[in-house]
Amino acid sequence: MKYDVSMKNHIKYRPQYYPVSSEYTDWVKKDHIEKAPSWCSVDLRDGNQALIVPMSLQEKLDFFTYLCRLGFKEIEVGFPAASETEYEFVRTLIEKDMIPEDVKIQVLTQSREHIIRKTLDSLVGAKHAIVHLYNSTSFAQRQQVFRRSKEEITKIATDGAQLIKEIASEEIYKGTDFQFEYSPESFTGTEMDYAAEICNAVIDIWELTPDHPVIINLPATVELSLPHVYANQICYMDRNLHRRDSVILSLHPHNDRGTGVACAELGMLAGADRVEGTLFGNGERTGNVDIITLAMNMFTHGVDPKLDFTNMPQTVEKYEEYTDMKVSPRQPYAGELVFAAFSGSHQDAIAKGMKFREETDPNRWTVPYLPIDPHDVGREYDGDVIRINSQSGKGGVAYLIQRDHGFDIPKAMRSEVGYMMKDISDRNHEELSSDNIFEIFRKSYVNYFAPLDITDAEFTYGSSLKDEGNQQRVKVDMRVVVGGKEDENKEIYNLTGTGNGRMDAVSNALQKTKYNFNYKFITYSEHALSQDSNSKAAAYICIEDTNGRDFWGVGTHDDIILASVNALVSAINRMNDEDRFMN
Amino acid sequence: MKYDVSMKNHIKYRPQYYPVSSEYTDWVKKDHIEKAPSWCSVDLRDGNQALIVPMSLQEKLDFFTYLCRLGFKEIEVGFPAASETEYEFVRTLIEKDMIPEDVKIQVLTQSREHIIRKTLDSLVGAKHAIVHLYNSTSFAQRQQVFRRSKEEITKIATDGAQLIKEIASEEIYKGTDFQFEYSPESFTGTEMDYAAEICNAVIDIWELTPDHPVIINLPATVELSLPHVYANQICYMDRNLHRRDSVILSLHPHNDRGTGVACAELGMLAGADRVEGTLFGNGERTGNVDIITLAMNMFTHGVDPKLDFTNMPQTVEKYEEYTDMKVSPRQPYAGELVFAAFSGSHQDAIAKGMKFREETDPNRWTVPYLPIDPHDVGREYDGDVIRINSQSGKGGVAYLIQRDHGFDIPKAMRSEVGYMMKDISDRNHEELSSDNIFEIFRKSYVNYFAPLDITDAEFTYGSSLKDEGNQQRVKVDMRVVVGGKEDENKEIYNLTGTGNGRMDAVSNALQKTKYNFNYKFITYSEHALSQDSNSKAAAYICIEDTNGRDFWGVGTHDDIILASVNALVSAINRMNDEDRFMN
Repeated sequence: MKYDVSMKNHIKYRPQYYPVSSEYTDWVKKDHIEKAPSWCSVDLRDGNQALIVPMSLQEKLDFFTYLCRLGFKEIEVGFPAASETEYEFVRTLIEKDMIPEDVKIQVLTQSREHIIRKTLDSLVGAKHAIVHLYNSTSFAQRQQVFRRSKEEITKIATDGAQLIKEIASEEIYKGTDFQFEYSPESFTGTEMDYAAEICNAVIDIWELTPDHPVIINLPATVELSLPHVYANQICYMDRNLHRRDSVILSLHPHNDRGTGVACAELGMLAGADRVEGTLFGNGERTGNVDIITLAMNMFTHGVDPKLDFTNMPQTVEKYEEYTDMKVSPRQPYAGELVFAAFSGSHQDAIAKGMKFREETDPNRWTVPYLPIDPHDVGREYDGDVIRINSQSGKGGVAYLIQRDHGFDIPKAMRSEVGYMMKDISDRNHEELSSDNIFEIFRKSYVNYFAPLDITDAEFTYGSSLKDEGNQQRVKVDMRVVVGGKEDENKEIYNLTGTGNGRMDAVSNALQKTKYNFNYKFITYSEHALSQDSNSKAAAYICIEDTNGRDFWGVGTHDDIILASVNALVSAINRMNDEDRFMN
Repeated sequence: MKYDVSMKNHIKYRPQYYPVSSEYTDWVKKDHIEKAPSWCSVDLRDGNQALIVPMSLQEKLDFFTYLCRLGFKEIEVGFPAASETEYEFVRTLIEKDMIPEDVKIQVLTQSREHIIRKTLDSLVGAKHAIVHLYNSTSFAQRQQVFRRSKEEITKIATDGAQLIKEIASEEIYKGTDFQFEYSPESFTGTEMDYAAEICNAVIDIWELTPDHPVIINLPATVELSLPHVYANQICYMDRNLHRRDSVILSLHPHNDRGTGVACAELGMLAGADRVEGTLFGNGERTGNVDIITLAMNMFTHGVDPKLDFTNMPQTVEKYEEYTDMKVSPRQPYAGELVFAAFSGSHQDAIAKGMKFREETDPNRWTVPYLPIDPHDVGREYDGDVIRINSQSGKGGVAYLIQRDHGFDIPKAMRSEVGYMMKDISDRNHEELSSDNIFEIFRKSYVNYFAPLDITDAEFTYGSSLKDEGNQQRVKVDMRVVVGGKEDENKEIYNLTGTGNGRMDAVSNALQKTKYNFNYKFITYSEHALSQDSNSKAAAYICIEDTNGRDFWGVGTHDDIILASVNALVSAINRMNDEDRFMN
C-alpha cells in the first residue's frame, strides 16, 4: 500500500510578480515595528463589496460610527458613482453631520470623467475627504483586459488626476479639505520601474507639500509573492518615488496566500506609513489584511496601536452583526479558542506563570502560552483559558478547582483527580466546565458521609493525658452513625478513644465498632478557605488500605479540627467503595 | 466629536524573542521556494488536543487513512503515554496493519522515564517510527515553570535522548526502523545560542548519518516575532547545528500573530527541510501552520507540492467531519468565497482573462483576480467565480448569461441589463444566482409577445420588388394579434408591407393597425445559439421612441429571420410598458 501523489497542473503556473534586486532588502535588519501607522478602514468599501449580501444603508451608518469609536481616522466609505445606495450613504454621512471632526472619509473612483464627477458630487459639504483614484497597471491586465500600452495606461491615470485636481478647486468645494490618493491597482503584478513611473506621473500633477501630502497606495490586489518580496518592492518604491517627503506611502494587502499580515508588517519595516485593511480581514476572496491582528501584534511588542480593541467580544459581536460573517474560533486575539489551553503541560505552565507574575511584577506580562493577557482585550480567564477535555492534565484541573472554589489540592492528590476528569471527558466525549469539574470533585471527595458518619466529636488535651514517654495524648468523645442518616438500619455508637493526635484518637475509637477499619495514615494537610466560601477550612487526608492502595478524602468545616475529621471520614468511606468494610 | 483612543496596557509588554545578527539574513535574496519540503501532519496530535471535543478512536483512524491518501509520509499520531485512547490508537494502527509501507508514524514524548517507556511500548511491531522528544527551553519557562538552570534543562533533554536510544536498541524493536526527533519546545522564546547548545547536546548523543538523519524541530510554540525574525533564527540554527548533513531541520510554526504561513515559508528559504503543520491550520489556540496554504502557495509558483488537494471540496468536508471545526469562507484556496468576484470590474477582467487564455494558451494560467484555476482544486467556475449582488456590474451579468445560456448580449445593451440586476439585488438585499439572472433577463426581454404578437410572417424578395433607385425591397405578409392570445378582446390583422429590409417591411405593415407604433431603429445584431439550446438563433434589436428613449428586445427562433421578428416585437412591447401605445 502506497500513495504516490502529485498535483500535475503546477506546470500551468509561473510566478507573476517582478522581484527587485537585493539592494532593497535592508528592512530585514529591523526586528519590530516601532510606531503605529496611519490606519485606513476599507470595511465599508472593499469589505462590503465582498459580502454575499452587501450591507444596508443603516448597517453602513452604524458600522461607520463604530469604526470611529474604535479610533479610525480615515475610512473609505464607498464607490459613490457605482450605485445609488453608495451615493446616498456618503450624502447621509455628510448631511446628518455624522463624521467626527478629525475623521476623513475616503471615496474610490475610476479614471472616467462621469464617474469622477459623480464621485466629487457626492462630497459637497464634507469637511475632509480623500479622493482615491485607481487604475489597473499589471502586465496581465494591460495585456488581457485593457489591451493598451504602458503610455496609454499612464494617460488614464494622469487624465484622472488632472480632472480631480480641477474639479476639486471649484468654488463649491471651498469648505472641503481634500487629500488625493492614487493606487496603481494590481501593483503586485506590475513591473516595479513602471509602477514607480506611473505613480510619479500622478505625483507630478498633484500639488503636494510635506504639510499637505498625497497618498500613494500600493495594493497587493492579489497576493502573488512571498511577503518579503512585497516588502522589497515597497522598499524600491520608497526610494524611487518623487517628492517622498510629501508622499504618504500606503499598503493595501490582500490575503490570497495567507500572508496578508506578514506583507503589511514587512512592508511597514520597508518604509510604508499607512495601512488600508479591515476588521478581521473581511474583503474580496480571501480578504483584506486584518487590521486587528496588525494592531494587536504591535501591542504585544509594547507599541500603542492607537486603535481600541479593549472590548474585543463587542468588536466581534458588532462585526458579525454588520457583515453576517463569522469570526473563526482561531482568529488571532479574538477567536473563542485563542486563549484556550486544553493540554496538561500548557495548563500547568500557565498556572505557574500566573503565580510568578503575581509574586513578581503584575504590570509585566510573560505568562507562557498566552501571548497577551486576555483581560487586555476584555476576555476572562474564567472559561477562556484553562479548559478541560480528555487531553488535559492534573495541573489544569487543580488550577480551576483552586481558582473558582479555593481548594488547593495537595500535589500528591492532583494526579488522581486529573485522571478522574480526563477519563470522564474521554468516556463522555465532551469538554468539562469548571463547574462540572468541581461538582465531580465535591461528590467524589468532599464531606463524603456515608455509610460512616461522625456527627459529633469533642477533643480533650491536657497533662492527665500524657503517655509513658511523656508525650501529649489526645482524647476524643464522638458520636458515630453507620448506615446513613436516613436509613432505618443505621447504627449509632458513642465512642471514646485516645491517640498521639486527633486523627489517631478518632481511628482508635472507630476500632470499637464491629467494622473492620484497617488503614494507615499517609499524609495530611489543611488550609483556610476564602471568605466567600461557606466553610472556613479544608483538610485533605490520604490513607492506605491493607492492599497498599491510597484513598484521599477532603473535609470542610467552620472549625479546622472538624474539617480534618470530615476528611478522614471521607477517605474511609471512599476506601469502603473498594473494600466494602461493611460486608 | 472626537475619539482619542489608545490601548494603554501596551506598557505591560516587551518583545520576548531573541533576534540574531544581520549576518543571518541571506535568505531574503531568494524570492520563491523551489521544492516541496518533507511534510509532517500533526493533525492527530497538536490538532486533536486543541479541539473542544477531541476525536474518537474511529475518527482518528479514518483521518489517518485520509491523510495517507493526501500524500503525507510522516504523521504524528499522538502522545501515547498521555491517555489510554492515544495508546490504543497507536496500537490499532500497528495491529490492524493500517500504515502504508512508505509512511512513518510519529509519537511525542516528554523526557521522563515512565513516559518514554510507555511511548516506545506503544510502537512494538511498527515498521517505521519517529520518536519525538521535547522539553521546554525558553527563558520564561525556565524561569517561571521549571525554575532550573540551563545545565539542568539540558540534562532533561540529554537524559531522555540517551534513554530513547537505549530502549530503541532492545531486541523487541529489531524489526522497527526508528528515527529520532528532538524539539526545544518554546524555541521562539529561547536565546539562540542556548537553543543551538541544547540541540547539539542531543545530536551528540544520537547516532546519525546522512542516510539516517535525525530531525531537529524548531517550534514557534507561541509565535512571538515578525516572521523574518523567525527565519533569521532558523538561518542561525542551520549554520550552528552539529552534523548538519545528518540533520533534517524542521519547522513547527503556530499562528498567534497570524503569520504562521509566512514563518514557514521564510523559514524554508532560510534552510529548513521539513514542516510540521495541519490541514487548515487546526491546532492549539490560533492553530498550527496550515499545510494546505503552504502547498498551494508553491503550486501557484509552478512547484509540485507532493500533496494532493485536487479535490478540495472533499478535503473540506472530511476535515469538518473529523474535527467538527468549520473552514472559513475566506480560507485560502478552499473557502466558499475565495474564487468569488462580486465587483463589476473584477468580473469584467476575469471574463476577458478567460477569453485571452482560450485564445492563446489554455495550459498557462494568468487570469486576473484568480490566483489559480478553480478547476485545479476541484471547484467549478459555475457558481464559484462570477457572482452577482448589488456591487456587481454589467460584465459579470453578461458573462453569466452567455456562459450558462449562450446569449451574447450586445455591448450597448449590457449596461441596461447590468443595472437591472444590480437594482433588483440591492432592493431585495440578496445575491442573484445565474439562474435567477437568466430568468429575469428572459422575462424582461426575450420573446415578449404581449400585447403585440406576430404569429406568422412570410417574406418575399425579388426583382419585381425594386424601388425607384433600383434598391432591393422586401415584402412581408403577416398575421398580427393584438391583445394577447388568450384574450377575448384580441384583434387579428392580416397585413402586408414592404421596406428596405425585413424589419422595415414589418414596421410599415404595422402602421396599418389602429395603434401608434412610433419608433426608429437604432441597432440590430444576431448570432447562432449553441446546440443544446431549444432555439437555433438569437437576435437583438434596439428601437428609440419619440422621446428619444431606447428599448431593447430579444428574439429567438429556429429560423434566424423569425428570431429577428420576435426581437422587434419584444422591443415594441417593452416600449408599450412605458408608452402605452394601446391607450
